[in-house]
Amino acid sequence: MGARYDAAIIGTGPAGLSAAVTLKIRNKSFILFGSSSLSEKVEKAHEINNYLGLPAVTGAGLAKRFDEHLKQMQIEINEDRITGVYAMGDYYSLQSKSNQSYEADTVILATGVNFGRSYEGEEKFLGRGVSYCATCDAPLYKNKKVAIIGFSPKEEAEAEFMSEVAAEVYYIPAYKEQVSLNNKIKVVNDTPVAIEGKIKAQKLVMKNGELDVDGIFILRESVAPSQLVPGLVAENNHVAVNRRMETSLKGCFACGDITGTPYQYIKSAGEGNVAALSAVSYIDEKRRANKQQNK
Amino acid sequence: MGARYDAAIIGTGPAGLSAAVTLKIRNKSFILFGSSSLSEKVEKAHEINNYLGLPAVTGAGLAKRFDEHLKQMQIEINEDRITGVYAMGDYYSLQSKSNQSYEADTVILATGVNFGRSYEGEEKFLGRGVSYCATCDAPLYKNKKVAIIGFSPKEEAEAEFMSEVAAEVYYIPAYKEQVSLNNKIKVVNDTPVAIEGKIKAQKLVMKNGELDVDGIFILRESVAPSQLVPGLVAENNHVAVNRRMETSLKGCFACGDITGTPYQYIKSAGEGNVAALSAVSYIDEKRRANKQQNK
Repeated sequence: MGARYDAAIIGTGPAGLSAAVTLKIRNKSFILFGSSSLSEKVEKAHEINNYLGLPAVTGAGLAKRFDEHLKQMQIEINEDRITGVYAMGDYYSLQSKSNQSYEADTVILATGVNFGRSYEGEEKFLGRGVSYCATCDAPLYKNKKVAIIGFSPKEEAEAEFMSEVAAEVYYIPAYKEQVSLNNKIKVVNDTPVAIEGKIKAQKLVMKNGELDVDGIFILRESVAPSQLVPGLVAENNHVAVNRRMETSLKGCFACGDITGTPYQYIKSAGEGNVAALSAVSYIDEKRRANKQQNK
Repeated sequence: MGARYDAAIIGTGPAGLSAAVTLKIRNKSFILFGSSSLSEKVEKAHEINNYLGLPAVTGAGLAKRFDEHLKQMQIEINEDRITGVYAMGDYYSLQSKSNQSYEADTVILATGVNFGRSYEGEEKFLGRGVSYCATCDAPLYKNKKVAIIGFSPKEEAEAEFMSEVAAEVYYIPAYKEQVSLNNKIKVVNDTPVAIEGKIKAQKLVMKNGELDVDGIFILRESVAPSQLVPGLVAENNHVAVNRRMETSLKGCFACGDITGTPYQYIKSAGEGNVAALSAVSYIDEKRRANKQQNK
């Protein structure tokens, strides 16, 4: 556990980076979580024509410019993946995949919309047989049967790790790339549909079959906001925000695709700036109030 | 009177330009009104560090990049100054200083916040002795007494023009630069406070004196939004908008500083993009509905 940051930003797309740049100018301490390769979505774009000031830029070109901006302002990215954000009353506690814990006065959510639709029963059994982090929860499944749904080839490492602990591991790849796993793991090429069970998750139902298991791991790039931050109010599948980018939780702000359409880089960058400035106001006001009380 | 445009954008700061770029990509016809020197505010900025992708850019540098973006997309600026926007039910009619009239299905307001506070009585007597356009209304003041409040040296030309028509012209400069006018015009160095009258404006009250006149011309860089667009709902001195940048008038959108703080370039650019996309949806929906009706 380190110091408490003024802000924790989750996401390194245009929204998260814009928030970071603004917080830096305002001399706030913050930690920025996300992939160093910036938003994969940005990099995959062919040509972007409506990012004012950068005409006809490629996705890779835009990502490079963002990267240069971070370097010039000495902003670093922490690649630890945040799996849970908890409102502690006066501050936020963030839990990560590597089992680290972080504290911040404010949180800026900028995780995009890459989290996909959740499966039927997923939310219901979350924490009761359903998990988003294999390395965190593997010890609970010693000598048991688990199914792992991986959304990218890099999740295969999680499956390998699990296979050292669990009795049986099924791996369902939700991507097209070649799967390469040790032969203790059974690869199932099917499409998950629902999670069923009584008190705990017991069964993964797929289009063409089902698996009786003790645990189901869903390894997506990002986690749906309401699952990431318990208590957060959603609106049409997005995080509900007002024009100041305030969410339903005090001190928690959101920006970018996570707040809804249109999904546009310049819109996200603009919202990141607003979210950061709202966080700055919130922090400053809180300090003033604390000073008053201590007088 | 030319063709009816899909959209009329008023303002050439980051919000207006971002809207223009987005409409262009979406193949909508539009007309962009504003100064060719882009937003003066942008050009005057020293260094901007939070426009993501363009670190440590000067105001002039940013304006140059915006200009290049417009050139590359073949977007032109019309310098005619819009003095009134009127909701005609199904479309908008725009009146200009040069007495031109334009029509558009939608209007995107991006005029910034340079309009200053209005004087007491200004709104009350607008159109009844108070005007924002000397060249338009000069004929009404033949052989009469008028006061002209100019907010920049370029308004002096308006005063000169008026002096050819009116019997007496008082010129009150609301700036620090040297005033240079023909000697038919009386320069009054005082601070206007209020406009008084019965049915029509009759008196300009200043801090240290007053002027009995038949007409009062207030020549600001921009006009307050509620005066520019009758019927527009304001909120805390800004145009009230929702997250889609819709104003209280159907088909009328607003973006940038005019919608409220924070006054930031990237926030304005983001909002311009959203306003344009909302206008696109509005136009497309209207066409679909018309097609249905004509079937």
